[in-house]
Amino acid sequence: MTKRVLLLFAAVATFAMGVSQGQVTRARSPIRIPDIPGYRTLKCDFHVHTVFSDGNVWPQIRAEEAWRQGLDAIAITDHIEYQPHKDDLPINHERSFEIAKIHGDDLGVLVLKGSEVTRKMPPGHFNAVFLKSSRVLDVEDWRDALRLAAGQGAFIFWNHPGWTGQQPDGISRWYPEHTELLEKGQLHGIEVVNGQDYYPEVHRWCLEKNLTMLGNSDIHDPAGLVWETGTVGGRPLTLVFATDRTPEAIREALFARRTAVAVNGMLIGRKEYLEPIFKGSIEVLNPSVTVRGKRSAFVQISNVSDIDYDLSGEEQFEEVSVPSRLVLKGGKTVLLQLQGKSETLDMKKTFDLRYVVTNLKITPDAGLEVTFPVSVTFAPE
Amino acid sequence: MTKRVLLLFAAVATFAMGVSQGQVTRARSPIRIPDIPGYRTLKCDFHVHTVFSDGNVWPQIRAEEAWRQGLDAIAITDHIEYQPHKDDLPINHERSFEIAKIHGDDLGVLVLKGSEVTRKMPPGHFNAVFLKSSRVLDVEDWRDALRLAAGQGAFIFWNHPGWTGQQPDGISRWYPEHTELLEKGQLHGIEVVNGQDYYPEVHRWCLEKNLTMLGNSDIHDPAGLVWETGTVGGRPLTLVFATDRTPEAIREALFARRTAVAVNGMLIGRKEYLEPIFKGSIEVLNPSVTVRGKRSAFVQISNVSDIDYDLSGEEQFEEVSVPSRLVLKGGKTVLLQLQGKSETLDMKKTFDLRYVVTNLKITPDAGLEVTFPVSVTFAPE
Amino acid sequence: MTKRVLLLFAAVATFAMGVSQGQVTRARSPIRIPDIPGYRTLKCDFHVHTVFSDGNVWPQIRAEEAWRQGLDAIAITDHIEYQPHKDDLPINHERSFEIAKIHGDDLGVLVLKGSEVTRKMPPGHFNAVFLKSSRVLDVEDWRDALRLAAGQGAFIFWNHPGWTGQQPDGISRWYPEHTELLEKGQLHGIEVVNGQDYYPEVHRWCLEKNLTMLGNSDIHDPAGLVWETGTVGGRPLTLVFATDRTPEAIREALFARRTAVAVNGMLIGRKEYLEPIFKGSIEVLNPSVTVRGKRSAFVQISNVSDIDYDLSGEEQFEEVSVPSRLVLKGGKTVLLQLQGKSETLDMKKTFDLRYVVTNLKITPDAGLEVTFPVSVTFAPE
Amino acid sequence: MTKRVLLLFAAVATFAMGVSQGQVTRARSPIRIPDIPGYRTLKCDFHVHTVFSDGNVWPQIRAEEAWRQGLDAIAITDHIEYQPHKDDLPINHERSFEIAKIHGDDLGVLVLKGSEVTRKMPPGHFNAVFLKSSRVLDVEDWRDALRLAAGQGAFIFWNHPGWTGQQPDGISRWYPEHTELLEKGQLHGIEVVNGQDYYPEVHRWCLEKNLTMLGNSDIHDPAGLVWETGTVGGRPLTLVFATDRTPEAIREALFARRTAVAVNGMLIGRKEYLEPIFKGSIEVLNPSVTVRGKRSAFVQISNVSDIDYDLSGEEQFEEVSVPSRLVLKGGKTVLLQLQGKSETLDMKKTFDLRYVVTNLKITPDAGLEVTFPVSVTFAPE
Repeated sequence: MTKRVLLLFAAVATFAMGVSQGQVTRARSPIRIPDIPGYRTLKCDFHVHTVFSDGNVWPQIRAEEAWRQGLDAIAITDHIEYQPHKDDLPINHERSFEIAKIHGDDLGVLVLKGSEVTRKMPPGHFNAVFLKSSRVLDVEDWRDALRLAAGQGAFIFWNHPGWTGQQPDGISRWYPEHTELLEKGQLHGIEVVNGQDYYPEVHRWCLEKNLTMLGNSDIHDPAGLVWETGTVGGRPLTLVFATDRTPEAIREALFARRTAVAVNGMLIGRKEYLEPIFKGSIEVLNPSVTVRGKRSAFVQISNVSDIDYDLSGEEQFEEVSVPSRLVLKGGKTVLLQLQGKSETLDMKKTFDLRYVVTNLKITPDAGLEVTFPVSVTFAPE
Repeated sequence: MTKRVLLLFAAVATFAMGVSQGQVTRARSPIRIPDIPGYRTLKCDFHVHTVFSDGNVWPQIRAEEAWRQGLDAIAITDHIEYQPHKDDLPINHERSFEIAKIHGDDLGVLVLKGSEVTRKMPPGHFNAVFLKSSRVLDVEDWRDALRLAAGQGAFIFWNHPGWTGQQPDGISRWYPEHTELLEKGQLHGIEVVNGQDYYPEVHRWCLEKNLTMLGNSDIHDPAGLVWETGTVGGRPLTLVFATDRTPEAIREALFARRTAVAVNGMLIGRKEYLEPIFKGSIEVLNPSVTVRGKRSAFVQISNVSDIDYDLSGEEQFEEVSVPSRLVLKGGKTVLLQLQGKSETLDMKKTFDLRYVVTNLKITPDAGLEVTFPVSVTFAPE
Repeated sequence: MTKRVLLLFAAVATFAMGVSQGQVTRARSPIRIPDIPGYRTLKCDFHVHTVFSDGNVWPQIRAEEAWRQGLDAIAITDHIEYQPHKDDLPINHERSFEIAKIHGDDLGVLVLKGSEVTRKMPPGHFNAVFLKSSRVLDVEDWRDALRLAAGQGAFIFWNHPGWTGQQPDGISRWYPEHTELLEKGQLHGIEVVNGQDYYPEVHRWCLEKNLTMLGNSDIHDPAGLVWETGTVGGRPLTLVFATDRTPEAIREALFARRTAVAVNGMLIGRKEYLEPIFKGSIEVLNPSVTVRGKRSAFVQISNVSDIDYDLSGEEQFEEVSVPSRLVLKGGKTVLLQLQGKSETLDMKKTFDLRYVVTNLKITPDAGLEVTFPVSVTFAPE
Repeated sequence: MTKRVLLLFAAVATFAMGVSQGQVTRARSPIRIPDIPGYRTLKCDFHVHTVFSDGNVWPQIRAEEAWRQGLDAIAITDHIEYQPHKDDLPINHERSFEIAKIHGDDLGVLVLKGSEVTRKMPPGHFNAVFLKSSRVLDVEDWRDALRLAAGQGAFIFWNHPGWTGQQPDGISRWYPEHTELLEKGQLHGIEVVNGQDYYPEVHRWCLEKNLTMLGNSDIHDPAGLVWETGTVGGRPLTLVFATDRTPEAIREALFARRTAVAVNGMLIGRKEYLEPIFKGSIEVLNPSVTVRGKRSAFVQISNVSDIDYDLSGEEQFEEVSVPSRLVLKGGKTVLLQLQGKSETLDMKKTFDLRYVVTNLKITPDAGLEVTFPVSVTFAPE
């Protein structure tokens, strides 16, 4: 059979096969962030809107997007009080969850029932998740709404405390109302990240007041208008360290403050969670190397996660120079170069290479400190 | 200022700047398909659904997607008869157009009023575009519905005639009902392409019966679940060759059959439209070259369109060998290699290099024939 | 600190950080093709050129490219007889290996010593790998050259038997000279793939004559001019199923014919190797599903390899419809949709879903047959 | 013909067609930076190495890379004094230019003859371009070398003055030797950018001392190991504003200081060149809009260049709010949102929207100031 004949068939077949430019395959892209000892690392988004408040997609789309983007769980949290579509779509606070859940069940994505209590500041907007009924929150006084949510066993968190719609200067402010809620046991966490906004003040409050840190998308539009199709990392996530992949285990972990926030390749959270994620991602493939004279030896570091870890270090050694910056690319192996400083050295020594992972933020001002022990045999060239 | 200091500021600033992984910028990606002499080449999609029938987005999203994807016009064509959301969202046949049009007006995208008359085969599904009222089509008999559409001056076309939902073997069939509609002047065009499906039989009917060719997305889900964000070419388009960028000019062009179909980097249409598109895309940068002995000379061909033109040719010449396949990549310049066959030739000759552009289909079986005249000076090496 | 201040610092810092458009990070991209029981799957290329024959890079670049592209081993195989750079670069048959090996040792890439014996057809070009000396092959008679290679214990294979430079019609031909070499024990394998060319005849010969199958790049230019930076799959590979990641283990596996060929997302090889690669790549996440009435249930299939497996099946079942084509995307999870055919079915049944993986070629005409057992509980909706 | 049959042919044909994963097409990607009034904007790199000094590619590869990356001209500038390959490849200072030029002539890329005079600091490394002979620069005293270069009419510039190999703290220092060269007329320009390094001090010197600004790659490895294949922007460029696309016109422009530097989506240069580049890139599609009450109107701004212009502005208006940051994406159209502040305004007014383009650096501390006049009709909603 000649090439020409094949070519003609191929031209026809291209169409039939659906091999097509720019076409998206229906597929789930797993988010590679490792589990930690004792817990599964679940990727969750607890702040999601649909056409049943001011969102722009039919609810099942939220489950489909979550499945494709590798999420384990989402909460549907339409506004109680803000219903701009109501002249076309009669208010039904329970309905978006019902529709999304059917699709989630088909695809194995956990869909949780929530609502956004939407009030002026103070106290602002709050999500209540793990509700039994949403419509009972549709009351005049916000104190009643949050009390009724708490009464259902809901996990309640304060949304986007530095949102410029309620804080024109973008600075989060803590009001007496928040102290009141905290004392009543009706405030369990806060969004440290909402969409693309990070609130350093809030990060600090969570550490000081022992609150759960959340990072959520607050998505209104279809995901494809917000994040590149098929990429990982754009969508803000609450990482939940849970004993199981069930709604109950997620709820338990949220109340126990076992969360971290992932957004734009950055992780925000307590050291006890970020450190094992880093350790579970990284493998030093050859921790013992030989440096000959002033030549270089290369320690290879593999990173099986999807996170690019960005390391900075100040330390240098008398015997070898080491990089002051090193990016451990997600899914790749990179080189840590050790360059000899003497032609004649003949000895063996172990160095503890200390770095700060600047994109693992354990406080607003501090990255995670990590150490790589490297054993170097020095030999003349 | 030292590097270290800069580094720290940068780490903080990344967040504030919203320089973020996988984040989509709100931007319009122009589709580069050239205008043709006398007409603008408008990129249109006349088959689009919203939550107001069985689609999954609020109508304004359709205008936003169209703007970002570089379209000039869309028709909102929700089903009249198929209303699976009606228990949640009361039927209102006029409403999706109204909502989408406000957003389209803001962004300069033409939003046209249409409806899909949705009946069993024969005669199947039909879109009527440029309607004044949609609700009047909500009648029992399909003959009445199409008559009332035609009475409003609508442009009416038959949708996906080979859809496996109505033709299990995927083969389009022409029924007496279609002859009846054609004779009554109530059938003006047919979808040669619907979504990812191409119907060669229909392509032939359009040529034989002098009907307008259409290629539409029939999109129900958000665009980001169907096509890669920011790519050009996945979404099927009806190219409309119009005197102006107005609804009236589009309507005139549709009735005058001045259209072609673009999908997956392929164009389908009459030679009179595809030939000037090709000519407007391509420039031979150096049509005169010198071939020395058995060395090669290179004619450079620039393609300013977004279409990869795929050329095949059978002809070879006594004096030079020329490529039998050549892909003129969209937005790039490629080389047409002319290799000498003799060490000693000393002459000048013009060659008409004839190719078939296999992805410009002027019939189901034939690509567009094109010729490049190349002037070659032969000299000993 | 206000947003504006951050912005200014960020603009300066961008430069200092080297956060730069289109810049390549020095990183190794692992090729995810699983090991098989008893053996490691090593990714090798046994046909590579440098400036020391007609290649265009200094030898160390070949080790760097191999490391970045995730290869385990390469053979440097410069031509003995073809030395177009010799007026600038004096002939030294041993030297390209020596230079490449130093860089390979630094990066942990195995660099093997080879040469290409480059003669007219018959018998054509041959690579000898695991040489001790290359220069001894620089003799007049090709019989002597191959005898001297075999005498060093080299693994010898015939290169690109269908190369149009020696076979103008592109068809591979077996000559008496090849029978002679085979009988002398001086022909151990053949390239089934060279660069982008696949030779089905050769694939068949390897099966019939029990020869080792090889797939090599035959690269002359820098890799970045040939394959997209950072992508996996473009470079042809010989997969070697070895007991260890050492030159000795590779040599043993080559002589034992434990290889397969990977190119353009296709694998070519014996069933005994392709089947465990497929099985090691795929996991059916939920092999038991419930189909309610005419609704669909979804079996999720995860593929941890980098290969998109392309499945075709003809079988359908009375109780459920199953897809006739399914692409298991590399690194993703996809859905196998089971759609019920009856409203009222109430039973449990296990189906063996049989497919052919069309891009795993166990003969030139046959893909690998695979079966997914799926247990379905049917219930009324 | 059924789908199944097509599928089988397609599977075979894929190979024959060379439609292959990750394969690079040999194509030129034009760099879209507009010409300016009176001059063509030529994209040049005047600092390029090959195997004939310490580079790692055969010289013709440099012309091929330049053609593919859309460059107009390169200078081959191998080191005179640094010849690490000399034991394998005998020193020949003229040869790399000769080899590269043949390939450049075939592809229409201008290849210029240069050399790098490579001395310790002070005075450091210097490129001399437009040489007649390189070997005459191989003398002991650097004063002689530069005098002999100048005597040939060469354009001479100081390379990477802040290179940490000669300035461990990365700070560029001006020595008396540089004053001496300047006064002798043997120093015509300096690299403001070398590879990924930008030297703000040098930027300032060029403005103060009226020297030509250069930005060059100083590439040693194959381009594909340094920049992503097919992307624009990673490779540093000297933009030369020349009357013609010839070596003579480039030389004239260099001596006349008509250059700017492009790197990582940033342009560095004198206002008289950056301003017309910006103006030639940008078109305001609808400079007159209507703002109804507190709704928004959108001015659409198209950018036909490949540069993402990053605009910051501080100004706000009483009647409308305007964005304080706006990224005009290369090749796209973006929205400038004007939001009304009053329900009742009924007037017409023209606003001069003033921004600083932060990535067009006319001094180390200042971006280019630009103004968009926008005419707004205010109307009640």
